[in-house]
Amino acid sequence: MVMQLDNFFRPRSVAVIGASRNPAKIGHVIMKNMIDGGFHGRVFPINPEAKEILGYRVYKSISEVNEIIDLAVIAVPAEFVLKIIDECNKKKIKDVLIVTAGFGEVGNHKLEEQLKDKLDKYGMRCVGVNCLGVFDAHHKFDTLFLPRYRLTRPKSGGISFVCQSGAIGSAILDIAAYNGYSFSKFVSYGNATQLDESDFIEYLLHDESTKVICLYAEGIKNGEKFFETLKKTTAVKPVIVLKGGLTDAGMKATVSHTGSLAGNKDVFYGVLNQTNAIRADSLEEMFHIAALFEKKVDFANNRIQIITNGGGYGIVTTDAIAGSKHLRMADMSSITAGEIKKKAPPHMNVGNPLDLLGDATTERYRDTLNLCLADKNIDGILLIALYQTPLLTTEIVEVITEAHRNSKKPIVVVSTGGEFTELLSKSLMERGIPVFNFPTETITALDKVVNYQLKHKHVKVITTSVKEEKIILGKLKTKPKAKPKPKAAKKKKK
Amino acid sequence: MVMQLDNFFRPRSVAVIGASRNPAKIGHVIMKNMIDGGFHGRVFPINPEAKEILGYRVYKSISEVNEIIDLAVIAVPAEFVLKIIDECNKKKIKDVLIVTAGFGEVGNHKLEEQLKDKLDKYGMRCVGVNCLGVFDAHHKFDTLFLPRYRLTRPKSGGISFVCQSGAIGSAILDIAAYNGYSFSKFVSYGNATQLDESDFIEYLLHDESTKVICLYAEGIKNGEKFFETLKKTTAVKPVIVLKGGLTDAGMKATVSHTGSLAGNKDVFYGVLNQTNAIRADSLEEMFHIAALFEKKVDFANNRIQIITNGGGYGIVTTDAIAGSKHLRMADMSSITAGEIKKKAPPHMNVGNPLDLLGDATTERYRDTLNLCLADKNIDGILLIALYQTPLLTTEIVEVITEAHRNSKKPIVVVSTGGEFTELLSKSLMERGIPVFNFPTETITALDKVVNYQLKHKHVKVITTSVKEEKIILGKLKTKPKAKPKPKAAKKKKK
Repeated sequence: MVMQLDNFFRPRSVAVIGASRNPAKIGHVIMKNMIDGGFHGRVFPINPEAKEILGYRVYKSISEVNEIIDLAVIAVPAEFVLKIIDECNKKKIKDVLIVTAGFGEVGNHKLEEQLKDKLDKYGMRCVGVNCLGVFDAHHKFDTLFLPRYRLTRPKSGGISFVCQSGAIGSAILDIAAYNGYSFSKFVSYGNATQLDESDFIEYLLHDESTKVICLYAEGIKNGEKFFETLKKTTAVKPVIVLKGGLTDAGMKATVSHTGSLAGNKDVFYGVLNQTNAIRADSLEEMFHIAALFEKKVDFANNRIQIITNGGGYGIVTTDAIAGSKHLRMADMSSITAGEIKKKAPPHMNVGNPLDLLGDATTERYRDTLNLCLADKNIDGILLIALYQTPLLTTEIVEVITEAHRNSKKPIVVVSTGGEFTELLSKSLMERGIPVFNFPTETITALDKVVNYQLKHKHVKVITTSVKEEKIILGKLKTKPKAKPKPKAAKKKKK
Repeated sequence: MVMQLDNFFRPRSVAVIGASRNPAKIGHVIMKNMIDGGFHGRVFPINPEAKEILGYRVYKSISEVNEIIDLAVIAVPAEFVLKIIDECNKKKIKDVLIVTAGFGEVGNHKLEEQLKDKLDKYGMRCVGVNCLGVFDAHHKFDTLFLPRYRLTRPKSGGISFVCQSGAIGSAILDIAAYNGYSFSKFVSYGNATQLDESDFIEYLLHDESTKVICLYAEGIKNGEKFFETLKKTTAVKPVIVLKGGLTDAGMKATVSHTGSLAGNKDVFYGVLNQTNAIRADSLEEMFHIAALFEKKVDFANNRIQIITNGGGYGIVTTDAIAGSKHLRMADMSSITAGEIKKKAPPHMNVGNPLDLLGDATTERYRDTLNLCLADKNIDGILLIALYQTPLLTTEIVEVITEAHRNSKKPIVVVSTGGEFTELLSKSLMERGIPVFNFPTETITALDKVVNYQLKHKHVKVITTSVKEEKIILGKLKTKPKAKPKPKAAKKKKK
């Protein structure tokens, strides 16, 4: 049974309980952003004292509304929440999103338990409490109570972000939007009073527009459920996880933030490893990894060819690949090398990294890129394009785009620079090609992407010597620790 | 004896040998950028076939110029370079900058050796060959032959960058300028035919406007000289080093790039450790570290207080500090905690991280920031300001600036976001406060900065227990491996 959470992301009708005329109040900002965001459904503001808010008729209570309400967004003080839940139940509302704080995270555990009991008794689903709510870029539904001029909303795409912390969620959405990343769904779920990280991941597993799932969590509500959910989800799409509170000091801090009890670091890393979830070691890295998946970077194997017009960049990237866990420097075929040599200037060395030199023209990029993409010894290209040199014309954008369109092999671009570089990089991003600023950080992210893909596809990883080839599949058969019935162990091939 | 390299960075008169009327030629671009850059000295273009270039009278040969020439910038094909050096010697020019490629890096070792012999015989100093040249932001001298619309020149400040690779140098200058970093001197020295990385570092040691030195090197020409130079330089100012070609694959690539033979990784790391140079593990990290030094972040000890309006950010940062090698979470005094509690809302926990909550006002930041700065248990502040929340007004810029002005303790800001955030972050940067995008990467850089400062000052590092205190000085007394006369071992206190 799939948990049906559509009402949270694309409700047809929403009641905003605690809607306000005062622009400084959360209940006002939620209304405003929902309307400004272009939401297509109906909106019913609830407030016993107001008549009209932002041009919408206000209802004294939820019982006054004569239509079916898919979702109640609740923004009233903590002490009124239980009463509101009773009213929502009477009105047969099954889905509530409670932004209100003042529960377990400030020590008010009793109130939070009462709330949970009530929700369970009524069979209601709940996002929150103490959360920022949801944003759906495809369905233009937005409960985030932060001004649009301060928090840029991203355009629609394939990244979904499940985030326990509202501040991390909003800051990351903002910078990601600014850098041209595109999103499907975002949910800030706060204390996870009822619905938890696993519920959202499971929902996103079945969400077609979600291509990659990012999770920032401070506590895991139910370890076994989390394990199972990750395992079945990563079989279909990647899940990248960053865990807050993995150190003793960090753990202490989570208690007062989302009331979470964070677990042991090694156990947690073990869970990620066994479920083929991807561990991010920082927020920046999480979104580097997500961008590679969102841009459909898909490796059939792990042999990377570097093409560059900066020798030093080629070397730094080579060092990063050599120091990575799962990537390998490609060894191009002699045929490819011969073809490249035919057109190359005499002072150019042909190898990996392939340094096209400071006088590299767009044409030289075109020739070598296409030859490398056609080489069966090469699984993907790390293309470094430094636009500071005058012979590299802006047509390079077309050259890369065309090569990307005509080949199934991934091209990942690294370009470092100022305004001119940003302009070209954004053009490439818009054409579906992932572009990053720095080589080492790109390789770190790519390493994790390729590892996931090869484990996922059960591909034989090509190592330095053919004899050393390992079948990654074998690793997957390791029995998960805390699992009594390891079903995977019996699976072979149906 | 200090190597006197002023002529390379602020010559009074320059000959451009190989100057050209053709805008596509390097000899033209060098002329143009030198003039457009606002260079105050005299410029003498040399070209046997032209009469005027960019409004400047052209001389057929260097011997035709009747004035003293401080520096010759040479941009003629490799086969003519030896002849030009002879002419420069006749003209009594002592300093030459040779951008020309086609020497050791393409296997033409013989020509490069001949050149070196000639330079030594004549007692000439040489930057290059196969290089991009120099840029001095304070003296507006610029030989970089890359268009100004593609490579933004940074404004004047305290970072100096010694870079073997021209492409890395130019790309980094460009992105650093774009992000508001400011520079003193930049030199791309290519094959290091004569002057090498150690010569430039020594020169920058004595350069007052240089506050921090960055080095990207592929080969170290003279290990002992490098060791000695680093040791005496880091006693005065920080040197951050990124080495290309530390892996076997990377090493192979350096040979064809700058003809360098890269050394063993462990030996190299050992040298950096023994000389108190700072190892950067990526280009991005190198400039994070440099920015902290350039903004005069100076720690008396290692106890950090986190102040945040995002709980999750506080936790992620706490995890990073707990996982760092040299930083420690500060433990504020009970007096400070009491004062903060007096003004704090009831639902706010007082501790470290100090979470000012999502409803944090600018006033709440002011109060807590000033109280923490005054606490003797706190050595510096990691201040997280997420501008997505409406109660944090733009006046926060003034609050942080004022606190920074009135306290000797460093404040490092982390802000993640889009356009609105960028605006406020740039304002802070201009006021001398370092601002970064992501917490984890900031802590990684800060860890290295604080380690340098404490070793440098021989400060007792405060560890979890007072009993565990270690005197870093002891570590410094370790005998350097490849050194026959370890003078440092006898030094105590004069």
